[in-house]
Amino acid sequence: MMVSDGFGPASQTYGRSYWQFATNRTFNTQTSLDQILIGASRTRSSDSLVTDSAAGATAFSCALKTYNAAIGVDPEGTPCGTVLESAKAQGMLTGLVVTSRITHATPASFSAHVVHRDMESDIALHQMGDYALGRQVDLMFGGGRCFFLPNTTEGSCRTDNRDLLAESVDPKYGWNKAILTRNELNETHLDAGVQLPALGLFHLDHMNFNLDRMNDKKIAAEEPSLNMMVDIALKTLKKAGFKNRSGFFLMIEGSRIGTVVDVVYMAAHNNDPAAHVHEILQYHEVVQTVRNFVRDNPDTVMISTSDHETGGFTLGLQPDPHTYPDYMWRPEAIARSKRSTEVLMHELLSFTGTEKERRTFVKRVILEEGLGVTDATEEEIAFIVSPESPPVEVLQHLGHVLSKRANLGWTTQGHTGVDVNLYAEGSQADRLRGNHENTDIGDFMVSFLDLNLEAITAKLNANLGWFKKTRDGFAAAVSKRDSSQHEKTGR
Amino acid sequence: MMVSDGFGPASQTYGRSYWQFATNRTFNTQTSLDQILIGASRTRSSDSLVTDSAAGATAFSCALKTYNAAIGVDPEGTPCGTVLESAKAQGMLTGLVVTSRITHATPASFSAHVVHRDMESDIALHQMGDYALGRQVDLMFGGGRCFFLPNTTEGSCRTDNRDLLAESVDPKYGWNKAILTRNELNETHLDAGVQLPALGLFHLDHMNFNLDRMNDKKIAAEEPSLNMMVDIALKTLKKAGFKNRSGFFLMIEGSRIGTVVDVVYMAAHNNDPAAHVHEILQYHEVVQTVRNFVRDNPDTVMISTSDHETGGFTLGLQPDPHTYPDYMWRPEAIARSKRSTEVLMHELLSFTGTEKERRTFVKRVILEEGLGVTDATEEEIAFIVSPESPPVEVLQHLGHVLSKRANLGWTTQGHTGVDVNLYAEGSQADRLRGNHENTDIGDFMVSFLDLNLEAITAKLNANLGWFKKTRDGFAAAVSKRDSSQHEKTGR
Repeated sequence: MMVSDGFGPASQTYGRSYWQFATNRTFNTQTSLDQILIGASRTRSSDSLVTDSAAGATAFSCALKTYNAAIGVDPEGTPCGTVLESAKAQGMLTGLVVTSRITHATPASFSAHVVHRDMESDIALHQMGDYALGRQVDLMFGGGRCFFLPNTTEGSCRTDNRDLLAESVDPKYGWNKAILTRNELNETHLDAGVQLPALGLFHLDHMNFNLDRMNDKKIAAEEPSLNMMVDIALKTLKKAGFKNRSGFFLMIEGSRIGTVVDVVYMAAHNNDPAAHVHEILQYHEVVQTVRNFVRDNPDTVMISTSDHETGGFTLGLQPDPHTYPDYMWRPEAIARSKRSTEVLMHELLSFTGTEKERRTFVKRVILEEGLGVTDATEEEIAFIVSPESPPVEVLQHLGHVLSKRANLGWTTQGHTGVDVNLYAEGSQADRLRGNHENTDIGDFMVSFLDLNLEAITAKLNANLGWFKKTRDGFAAAVSKRDSSQHEKTGR
Repeated sequence: MMVSDGFGPASQTYGRSYWQFATNRTFNTQTSLDQILIGASRTRSSDSLVTDSAAGATAFSCALKTYNAAIGVDPEGTPCGTVLESAKAQGMLTGLVVTSRITHATPASFSAHVVHRDMESDIALHQMGDYALGRQVDLMFGGGRCFFLPNTTEGSCRTDNRDLLAESVDPKYGWNKAILTRNELNETHLDAGVQLPALGLFHLDHMNFNLDRMNDKKIAAEEPSLNMMVDIALKTLKKAGFKNRSGFFLMIEGSRIGTVVDVVYMAAHNNDPAAHVHEILQYHEVVQTVRNFVRDNPDTVMISTSDHETGGFTLGLQPDPHTYPDYMWRPEAIARSKRSTEVLMHELLSFTGTEKERRTFVKRVILEEGLGVTDATEEEIAFIVSPESPPVEVLQHLGHVLSKRANLGWTTQGHTGVDVNLYAEGSQADRLRGNHENTDIGDFMVSFLDLNLEAITAKLNANLGWFKKTRDGFAAAVSKRDSSQHEKTGR
């Protein structure tokens, strides 16, 4: 099960077109995804036309519609059994490979049960195995180490002082010692795989954008690409699954396609077209890796879809109605960009020079070297330089400065409601043809793997002692949601 | 062959969601289109990632990529045989049913050959039968009467004084007397069909938006719905085709889904969400009519796709990042709108009262009664009232005032490059599954109907005397395109 987070139809056209430009391919060359398009997924949640990633992933994992922010719980906030847990109960191996924090909404919805996505300290506990079912995951690769460190440690995000890196190797959970860098996960693992259960946490927060990994050797030494992680995961799970005669379930997420940046910037999405396109290209590579695996293993199936669109993204907009019917987009503007706006923003926030030096820094380092923009207007520069501009708006502004030069457009920092593309290949993939509710994808996995979500749900709910803390959190979360709802309908 | 002009993926989600709201259906109810989704079409033209409707339709009709603005000609401006012409050569009956001017880009690309879409006086001649192949079309329903009237007549758009309504009944062309109103095309025709060759021109310009037809009895008396026109066309062509043992080819276009308004407002697109949704709902009805026909006639196939997306349209945007992860859209705002912004703009332009009266008129007639907006801000009102606001911007502004209240977004007045949905049902429809170039749809029709486009192309090019005027126009058109290109890359 592959999830391309925040990846709408226009982003696929954009990714293909940029790839054709950057690799000198003809306009009619298909990407790895195009070759396996079979339909579309309708993405709404139980309480909104526009879903968030939590409800979107729970639709896949529990095959039910739930409220935005719900992680593996139904609309009443009660735990629902997931395909990962049920696969484990059938004796299969299970894995999660992502580029966000491993505790983020999508992987969490397969491996944890909390009433609000922000309860990531609890999510990490469940993922480690400290909840009703014990350890359910055999392989976890991604970011989010900060939720595994005690809050007495610098860089920790936990609300308590538990040290999950230490606890996880306890026989109760049985994890092997966590892998923390790309250098530890080296080429030998590409053939041999890793020891299960395997925990790889390659960043405190989300892993870096692929654009930054490509252009910064330090990042490349610390963080593997999604494609490398997936390659190792597939080999490991196949080998071990073959030995156990068990098979496996693996969830892969291209987590940062929608360019979410939520610890630092309060859940804004960057609207960063260069970071966006390089996440897409990396995802295309991963799709090819998984497709190769599926072809070599005829009893497997792969599905790729998105939880929702992000940004109201469009490409090739018309800058001026008088040029009709001529339209254009400028991939070369994107190709000049060498760093994500996220990284550039960090650099800007830590800059300490005088105002004059700051201006030079913005022009040279941020705009010219970073974004590849050499023709910024006075107005565009001034907004970035001004200490009064709110960081979240400067971040957006940087994305828009670049987007404008490529004739790309965005309508929102958030998600939108458009149906997303559905791709699949392998055994029984034809059954997913056409236009579906996102929950149909969950139903397909249940049927394909012969799972029993009801049995897992019953087991989770038999004794809800483990869920008390989470349930208590629910009232607070609901009250927060209601007051926010109230504000919005009050206008 | 059904073309939903300017209808992108987000518009289908929008149409479905509004329909579910307006008719009290559950969220998982599919529309007539959803049930037959089979893939996507890549829409680029030979000279742009973003196509216009002319190159978009020529990709279907001639099965080749050509430049934006090209009508039934290849990238060198040479005529290319169309599926309609080739079907005629095979002895089939042919038809065009649209809601734009019949001389507009999409129907023109099946039935005419000119180097620029603006040459609509020539297009009407070709459609009547005054070109190399003689009359090729057996049934034409739509708007665009102004290009059939001599320029000595009020309301004419022709560049010459030819009276095509009179000429068309000449035995040389053989058309029956043109049908000009909905009342002439009455219920008896729903069973009996009409006499072929049939010419129905129900408006001087584009036919009105369905929203306005629904809310204005005068329009409803003058103009049939697209669904009624299609119903009559199918019955007529089936009956006559059965008699001739010939079969038929019919091109249907929901021409105004992208809400283009190009005579009055210089090719802007309205970004009018209410007119947009009612064009979509009407199109859904037409799809059901055609699907019923295809099911009753197992040797037929129907295809529905778009030429391109319009507006960079998105739904359910996030008005404020702080409300994350709650999103909403407000269909009730759309339901309150009773008139298209096009009609409201006409009313505003013909208003002659004092400035104070104008202000009252804008608030009451335009905003409250027309758009259903009762909470317009001072700024929103002032821009509409000001005589200094350019009409094309006021038109857009009206659409945005309404869109904002529904949480809908647009990035452009023009088209965008996203792949569009591909729908099909009937004989051999499975061959169109997956992601395709738009020209593949032309190739499919050629193969399905066993056509020979090369033979028609050869016939068209055997003696290009008829094409001289058009060829002369080409140099001017190219020079216009080049200078516009120059301006744009000059920044």
